[in-house]
Amino acid sequence: MSDVILYDYWRSSASYRVRIALSLMDMAYQSVAVDLLAGAHKAPDFRKRNPQGLVPALEIDGLVLTQSLAIIEYLDETRSHAGFLPKDAVGRQRVRALSHAIAMDIHPICNLGVVGNVMKQAEAHGEDPAKVRLAWMGKYIGEGLEAFERLLDHPGTGSFCHGDRPSMADICLIPQIYNARRWEVDLSHLPMVNRIAERCLAMDAFARAHPDLAKPRD
Amino acid sequence: MSDVILYDYWRSSASYRVRIALSLMDMAYQSVAVDLLAGAHKAPDFRKRNPQGLVPALEIDGLVLTQSLAIIEYLDETRSHAGFLPKDAVGRQRVRALSHAIAMDIHPICNLGVVGNVMKQAEAHGEDPAKVRLAWMGKYIGEGLEAFERLLDHPGTGSFCHGDRPSMADICLIPQIYNARRWEVDLSHLPMVNRIAERCLAMDAFARAHPDLAKPRD
Repeated sequence: MSDVILYDYWRSSASYRVRIALSLMDMAYQSVAVDLLAGAHKAPDFRKRNPQGLVPALEIDGLVLTQSLAIIEYLDETRSHAGFLPKDAVGRQRVRALSHAIAMDIHPICNLGVVGNVMKQAEAHGEDPAKVRLAWMGKYIGEGLEAFERLLDHPGTGSFCHGDRPSMADICLIPQIYNARRWEVDLSHLPMVNRIAERCLAMDAFARAHPDLAKPRD
Repeated sequence: MSDVILYDYWRSSASYRVRIALSLMDMAYQSVAVDLLAGAHKAPDFRKRNPQGLVPALEIDGLVLTQSLAIIEYLDETRSHAGFLPKDAVGRQRVRALSHAIAMDIHPICNLGVVGNVMKQAEAHGEDPAKVRLAWMGKYIGEGLEAFERLLDHPGTGSFCHGDRPSMADICLIPQIYNARRWEVDLSHLPMVNRIAERCLAMDAFARAHPDLAKPRD
């Protein structure tokens, strides 16, 4: 049994990011499902691990780490083969900026808790909440990934978001693409996003981290 | 004239973070106001600097950098006296996790564009949009800073969020406190948040970065 434990929820983008990172590193880990729908992240037991009550949390090196990007940066700093950020400060700045353009500017706004709040308001006024959700996701994921496409129009872009190996930016992009597809957001006009996503999704390391494989069996 | 240029908006939390960082480093810079209310961030001229069309952007070292936290990490990596992140990987992980607990889990949801969208929906249904905004801010800033207080209940906390000097976490906390006050969010039950905020706000470097001083004069 591995002594690395990931507290995971199959459909959480933040968990998906850490699964991709661990998978790219070929690091063995034990997965513990935290059922967000059942409120398991709010239980006192889990709160002891993450006082924020969010997934993912990663037990590693005798620590419990939280916040997906801070976990990925830690893995990059402590495991020389991770390579999630380039070695030069300018490249690192770009990879972080790309990552944050997704992890700060798209993902939190499309978090199901937030969107659930918007849906509840819509429903109280007789609107179809599912339709309101689709419009919300379409706007924020759509505009956010259009901006991301513009950021990729840069000499630093290679076969991946930055250069020719997957970085933290690709690790952020792929879960966002999963959500875009889930919510039927049209990305057909974003050639660089599509080309990079296709390349990532063809890699075994990304495939192994897919939500469908992290979904607990009934 | 300094060759460091900050494209700034006085009330943007992300801009405020970078102002604090530059101020803590005693770095001279020229400020260029980008009037978000007039849509200046969407003008082609500014889009050339930041294809995302967001503030802040920082011209430095012949580069144009975007994304506040990625800028702060760059300053930390390239200026040895910055010290925005500790030197040990575990401490760095904690400071990033604290920073992201604000910059990812509170701030984007309370972005005025997002809240404006919620208000528009409320107004269309005859609700008072200002009241809806206050409730939204109260919920997300309130719950988010309560979680932040729990994260501060940790041996790493010192006279600042991590140890005894201001880090990226404090740089994220102070603009969030400014917004909490602006939207009348009760923080009286958060003793560590209040103690640290008070200590930061008493420092000249934080005071110099305050939105009131960055507001363009008519």
